[in-house]
Amino acid sequence: MSSFAFEGFLSTPEMLEVFSEVSVTQAMMDFEAALARAQAAEGLMPHAAAQAITSVCKADLYDVPAIVGQSGRAGSLAIPLVKKLTETVALFDQQAAGYVHWGSTSQDVIDTAMVLLTRRALQLVERDLAALVRDLLVLAELHAATPVLARTLMQPAQVVTVGYKLLGWVAPLVRRQARLREAAARALKLQFGGAVGTLSVLGDAGPAVARRMADELQLALPPTAWHTQRDDWVALGAEVGVLCGALGKIARDLSAMAQGEIGELAEPSGGGRGGSSAMPHKRNPVSSMVALAAALRAPQRVAALLAAMPQEQERGLGNWQAELAEWAGLFISAHGAVKALAEAIAGLEIDAARMRQNIDALQGLVFAEAVSMRLARTLGKSRAHQMFEALAQRALAERRHLRELTLEAVQSDPALQVAMTVADIDMLFDLARAAEPAARIVRQQLPELKKEAAALAAAQEETRHG
Amino acid sequence: MSSFAFEGFLSTPEMLEVFSEVSVTQAMMDFEAALARAQAAEGLMPHAAAQAITSVCKADLYDVPAIVGQSGRAGSLAIPLVKKLTETVALFDQQAAGYVHWGSTSQDVIDTAMVLLTRRALQLVERDLAALVRDLLVLAELHAATPVLARTLMQPAQVVTVGYKLLGWVAPLVRRQARLREAAARALKLQFGGAVGTLSVLGDAGPAVARRMADELQLALPPTAWHTQRDDWVALGAEVGVLCGALGKIARDLSAMAQGEIGELAEPSGGGRGGSSAMPHKRNPVSSMVALAAALRAPQRVAALLAAMPQEQERGLGNWQAELAEWAGLFISAHGAVKALAEAIAGLEIDAARMRQNIDALQGLVFAEAVSMRLARTLGKSRAHQMFEALAQRALAERRHLRELTLEAVQSDPALQVAMTVADIDMLFDLARAAEPAARIVRQQLPELKKEAAALAAAQEETRHG
Amino acid sequence: MSSFAFEGFLSTPEMLEVFSEVSVTQAMMDFEAALARAQAAEGLMPHAAAQAITSVCKADLYDVPAIVGQSGRAGSLAIPLVKKLTETVALFDQQAAGYVHWGSTSQDVIDTAMVLLTRRALQLVERDLAALVRDLLVLAELHAATPVLARTLMQPAQVVTVGYKLLGWVAPLVRRQARLREAAARALKLQFGGAVGTLSVLGDAGPAVARRMADELQLALPPTAWHTQRDDWVALGAEVGVLCGALGKIARDLSAMAQGEIGELAEPSGGGRGGSSAMPHKRNPVSSMVALAAALRAPQRVAALLAAMPQEQERGLGNWQAELAEWAGLFISAHGAVKALAEAIAGLEIDAARMRQNIDALQGLVFAEAVSMRLARTLGKSRAHQMFEALAQRALAERRHLRELTLEAVQSDPALQVAMTVADIDMLFDLARAAEPAARIVRQQLPELKKEAAALAAAQEETRHG
Amino acid sequence: MSSFAFEGFLSTPEMLEVFSEVSVTQAMMDFEAALARAQAAEGLMPHAAAQAITSVCKADLYDVPAIVGQSGRAGSLAIPLVKKLTETVALFDQQAAGYVHWGSTSQDVIDTAMVLLTRRALQLVERDLAALVRDLLVLAELHAATPVLARTLMQPAQVVTVGYKLLGWVAPLVRRQARLREAAARALKLQFGGAVGTLSVLGDAGPAVARRMADELQLALPPTAWHTQRDDWVALGAEVGVLCGALGKIARDLSAMAQGEIGELAEPSGGGRGGSSAMPHKRNPVSSMVALAAALRAPQRVAALLAAMPQEQERGLGNWQAELAEWAGLFISAHGAVKALAEAIAGLEIDAARMRQNIDALQGLVFAEAVSMRLARTLGKSRAHQMFEALAQRALAERRHLRELTLEAVQSDPALQVAMTVADIDMLFDLARAAEPAARIVRQQLPELKKEAAALAAAQEETRHG
Repeated sequence: MSSFAFEGFLSTPEMLEVFSEVSVTQAMMDFEAALARAQAAEGLMPHAAAQAITSVCKADLYDVPAIVGQSGRAGSLAIPLVKKLTETVALFDQQAAGYVHWGSTSQDVIDTAMVLLTRRALQLVERDLAALVRDLLVLAELHAATPVLARTLMQPAQVVTVGYKLLGWVAPLVRRQARLREAAARALKLQFGGAVGTLSVLGDAGPAVARRMADELQLALPPTAWHTQRDDWVALGAEVGVLCGALGKIARDLSAMAQGEIGELAEPSGGGRGGSSAMPHKRNPVSSMVALAAALRAPQRVAALLAAMPQEQERGLGNWQAELAEWAGLFISAHGAVKALAEAIAGLEIDAARMRQNIDALQGLVFAEAVSMRLARTLGKSRAHQMFEALAQRALAERRHLRELTLEAVQSDPALQVAMTVADIDMLFDLARAAEPAARIVRQQLPELKKEAAALAAAQEETRHG
Repeated sequence: MSSFAFEGFLSTPEMLEVFSEVSVTQAMMDFEAALARAQAAEGLMPHAAAQAITSVCKADLYDVPAIVGQSGRAGSLAIPLVKKLTETVALFDQQAAGYVHWGSTSQDVIDTAMVLLTRRALQLVERDLAALVRDLLVLAELHAATPVLARTLMQPAQVVTVGYKLLGWVAPLVRRQARLREAAARALKLQFGGAVGTLSVLGDAGPAVARRMADELQLALPPTAWHTQRDDWVALGAEVGVLCGALGKIARDLSAMAQGEIGELAEPSGGGRGGSSAMPHKRNPVSSMVALAAALRAPQRVAALLAAMPQEQERGLGNWQAELAEWAGLFISAHGAVKALAEAIAGLEIDAARMRQNIDALQGLVFAEAVSMRLARTLGKSRAHQMFEALAQRALAERRHLRELTLEAVQSDPALQVAMTVADIDMLFDLARAAEPAARIVRQQLPELKKEAAALAAAQEETRHG
Repeated sequence: MSSFAFEGFLSTPEMLEVFSEVSVTQAMMDFEAALARAQAAEGLMPHAAAQAITSVCKADLYDVPAIVGQSGRAGSLAIPLVKKLTETVALFDQQAAGYVHWGSTSQDVIDTAMVLLTRRALQLVERDLAALVRDLLVLAELHAATPVLARTLMQPAQVVTVGYKLLGWVAPLVRRQARLREAAARALKLQFGGAVGTLSVLGDAGPAVARRMADELQLALPPTAWHTQRDDWVALGAEVGVLCGALGKIARDLSAMAQGEIGELAEPSGGGRGGSSAMPHKRNPVSSMVALAAALRAPQRVAALLAAMPQEQERGLGNWQAELAEWAGLFISAHGAVKALAEAIAGLEIDAARMRQNIDALQGLVFAEAVSMRLARTLGKSRAHQMFEALAQRALAERRHLRELTLEAVQSDPALQVAMTVADIDMLFDLARAAEPAARIVRQQLPELKKEAAALAAAQEETRHG
Repeated sequence: MSSFAFEGFLSTPEMLEVFSEVSVTQAMMDFEAALARAQAAEGLMPHAAAQAITSVCKADLYDVPAIVGQSGRAGSLAIPLVKKLTETVALFDQQAAGYVHWGSTSQDVIDTAMVLLTRRALQLVERDLAALVRDLLVLAELHAATPVLARTLMQPAQVVTVGYKLLGWVAPLVRRQARLREAAARALKLQFGGAVGTLSVLGDAGPAVARRMADELQLALPPTAWHTQRDDWVALGAEVGVLCGALGKIARDLSAMAQGEIGELAEPSGGGRGGSSAMPHKRNPVSSMVALAAALRAPQRVAALLAAMPQEQERGLGNWQAELAEWAGLFISAHGAVKALAEAIAGLEIDAARMRQNIDALQGLVFAEAVSMRLARTLGKSRAHQMFEALAQRALAERRHLRELTLEAVQSDPALQVAMTVADIDMLFDLARAAEPAARIVRQQLPELKKEAAALAAAQEETRHG
């Protein structure tokens, strides 16, 4: 068995490693070791047995692909793993072998392993998300007032600022950071219930064993096993899906503004980044590509997780297994996207001059609403709207600037002259003034956002070292 | 235009009304009225104009289907609605007509309308979810100790209790109630940004107008418009999707336990509920049917919302419109499922005798793990497991009870006699004792869950009357 | 109950009518009438009874919303409908009432009704798809040689022709037309099996009744009922999903090429089409919007249909009902998209001058691969690629034309002078020559495509009138 | 980088190998070799150069993980692969290195490689599907008349036969075999267009080179490159999705009928198949599990493929890459499901006695419709239906057989005695007679189905060896 050539390409080696066969195996071994120690501490097995078990709970002692290869027939990865672990313990301590996996069930070890790996996966996502947020906040501040076209329905609309666009990218990321942490706090919990969730084999000692295991593995201890009550778990997956959507929005905008004919933004280049095998002049927005792919794929992963929720009675048939297989894909996509965008933003090229050119090329049409609304005070909104619809069409047809046509129209109509002076027109067609409402929003929102981002970064640090 | 015959069937008249054309139109009118009033209060229009506008913001004054019918050509429902509203205002007050929709954009009015309707939709979901939770908690308490088969991978496994199963149904619902409220608090916010989100037409007055509108409509005021930053909104949708999954799990179990050959639970019957047009003896689990349909459909709705997130720059092309059209479906499914299950649980028939029969029919096999684990102390786990795999097969082949075979095996082997007395065997095959671990979990968890549910119900009441 | 405000907007009144409650009711009545007539012809009921039944199988005799309103409780639309029909027949002929729906089951009447409506839905899709194909073929021929930028990974790449792009749009549509017809031929079949698919109540007469019904309704007669074998049906849905994808590709390109900064294509305007409520100069690509929304939504509908396939034994619980509710959405989206694009293409504005400007603005970079590959004969591919990567960067930095830089480079290097003359350079930078490979493909492919499209259009005509 | 622990478990080693990194690399090398040979044959490069290239197009000469590892930065797997290949050729023949990948683009080599691998993948699916079909047909014939409960809406309904159920499983598979072949014939085509699909670099020789490559690789030659026209390709994916749905239906039924309380069917056991790590008596339906997981996951894969269809202009950004990454998953799921069910059916245990017991346990209720319909001739359908609804309830309440209650009812009512004799009652409650309509359908349909299956198997053989 081997890996998938086109997954790695959209992810990161780090994240692929988190969900690799070896990592999964090691996390399952970590569960078994914690189980043995907790049971020894509660007097359910001799300490020597726990010691014997723990000492061989190391993935690198085993032929991992062989274990994984046997999972198909058994219908569960836990069965060949526990078998192999038991045999290995028996080589050293026959009696201890009898205590391996005691009172536990396949789903306990696999679910807990996935929780442990997901915690690592989230740390990678959080780390690079924090860097992306930090860089976006810096750029937003730097370009708070740089004018750029707003575009709606894929058409130039009015003037805003680069900072305003970046604010629209970063604010959702800060929100998602916070939500991800909350969702993780609810979802990263021990799975330990035995065959049907009641830990019946352990008698009265069940809860105490569970508590010790949760402590050792630094996981939350849920009130009961959650074998078929996966709502908090799937909700974490859905959060990752929402994050991918927010990243996809950035990539959509970035790639649109990087189109050759627009050329306002560019991903960093050099070092083989985004070259074309056929065309020497090409510079492909490969970070956007990765994030767009994630935004396209993540919804389907979330749908699969949700579809897998109605799991039968005490343990499901097919749906749990499907969920397991879908889970990693979400994180693999998400980290690919976060990392790619973090790289793109770290080296983002912002061409303010080109932005200005693109505005100018529109012959003043982007000011049409403002001028129209100003005249609406005198003409009424409907007549003003019609007048400027007509002027806009003339501007395009005659390739003239709307300012000029407005001036002519005002000067040829005494009624309008009262409503609007040349100074008014100058003001209404002033670029900096047009950009001011957007710039003001940036100045107002950025401090709060920076504070939140800093608090989240601090919390992350603490988790990592806590 | 007309409605869809097979949607109503899986939803409720109440919820279909919330998202009806008339309700949407009224909610859009509510936005326009609030906008006019807020602008008058800020001195942007005469109070008389606001009065004129407000007085015709009533959906029943209009030919709603005609307005909706024109939305296709315009590419937006807001355009024909604002046009019609403006014409109507003009009938009474020509000058006021010029102020209609001032400074706003189509997406402002439509998004805010959807927020207002979604608040109503959530109240319906919450109301019936609270009833469902309440009834499940009562039943879980009542049947805390009633023995029933646990089933894993669709096979009988061990003995638990009805209360334990019901706890597994209700705990996720209580969690989802809390999460839904949090998600709603973040998502139910005013949308108001004008053409590109900056409220530029309103000059300095923009923020004050927005604040007044939020107050009047009792919506949260977001830091900026969220035209293409829909993460909190989609996250609310994802929460509804998770709820549908949790409801689907209940329906999966209920319908499985209601199968004729199992017969442990039954949905209420009578009054034309779940009859068959062909077979007089049939009693179809129609509540489960509705909830299963919701659990199948909701994941795809959530996927569509997530897929629609990468919206272009300041306002998207196609994706926003797709999201709008998908949104209602989630609530329509969710309320259908909640209401159906609330009905089913309110009249749920629990056949404890049949549950007992089903356990007895298994010839003691469900006690195999417990007995095997007990003998494992002496034989080691592996030998004990093998011994009981063999005994289990003999029990099936010879149609004998495992207790009897165990007794024979022990009595014929002096080594085992030391390990296990007849009293031990009696104890290990005792049903009440086998059910005790499950019953204990119910006793321990229920009080906390009841407290949480009560707190949530109180908070709901407050919201409704607040 | 009422309809959904944001569905109509993305569809057509015609298609909404096809799946309206009244149409569904009438189609179910058509089934009941055909059943009665077939049974009378086979001697299973008096002809007078069949006459009595048939004469009231008219939806406009009934309070359709009331019938639909009762479907929730019954768990099926067929139950209240058959009840009401039976009561109505009884008003005129008590005995005949006993024969209503004889030997049939809810799913027979509902599935067959959906088949009948789907046939009408497909005719609408086919009609407008044929128009779209026809117009695209005309434009492709007209602009077979008009040069335009090819773009890859959202960056300008090389020169192709408008006809080449249009060929890439239309060829999949012609393929999909053919596949849709094949899929429909397999899926549009009578559903008639009675309670468990065996028509047992009708004794030996079952097959003959089925054959008569299929003849009357002009539907294929399947070898058996397909209550829970819905593969051909879902495959038809998947085909509609593929069509939506092919339409979305057109909309993606059209909207990209219609961006203000590119301006090569424009959707028709005027008559309120795509105006902006806020910005007088805006011209929104509303047809693309509708098709993009369809392409975003259809995958989720197809996923729902596929997810609903594992239906339980002889008739499913929840999954069939979910499929029913999802089905119409596919056609509603698809027809909205086809119709919108047909309108857009019928009035498509192609700005060949702007296309030329966009090519010119790239300073000859789009010829880089061709020149590089030519020099590669002498320099080797790698050195040539590097040389032109460098020249491309200089062209951008110094705002000079690549032709000029190439000329300088060749003239300053005797080795290159041998490899490339000025005439070669002229030829390599010649626009018409660069566009020729694309133009040639159009000339070669178009005749065959026109023939296929004509054959399909003829087959459609025949179906419609056959 | 490494593989995913929970994918293999639901698939087969063979299929994982088909889409492994090494296989992908080799298939890409096969493209490059075919390209070189075709160009040499057309005089575009010396035969020696083609020989030099071809001789190193062997994946085992390379450090495949290293090449894959570099794909992230480049944004394409083709870029590092072509680079490495070029370097390797250069070691032996500096001049030949200049011809590597000549006139081709990344997407050409990757798409064609995926086509080559998909052909192998389909052969695996077809092979095991043929075995599954064959065994189902044998069992259907053997059990054509074995009575078993039909179940609708998860409730016992009437009597059919095992053969009838198996016919309902196998007929869709035979249909899907035929459709898969058709879809494959359309989708398995060469991708070769160069940078923008026009093969412009190859001048007039382009089409001839393409034809030679198609011949060598035994692929269909499409009229043009299909870089962004992926309808036929995605339609093949959708077909695989429909197949997974049809397999899921089998697994749903099989697992339902294998429930302990029903016990009519059982998957084969022994050799570690479906054991439980905790419960010695358990026998888990692991084949059903795998197929159910596939049926849950495949719809999401298909949705992703459809969602990826609107690819930008001449080559897409993000969507093509997403499609690539999703593609293998479909086949991995599908083959897992086919193989698992083939194993399950090859060893399927059919317990006819238990089927009979389950019928008997229903106290004659499954005959209610038949008896009721018979009396309906006299009483009218409505009165007869009511009478049997009441009798059915009495039967359940009093635990008596419906035959007995019917007899009493008839004997106590002279009017009914005329309508129905004791012989009639005996006949109506006769099991074999009740099963006859289902048995007849099997006898009628099976020969045709066997013929189709045989023809498909022969066609497969021919393809494999052709």
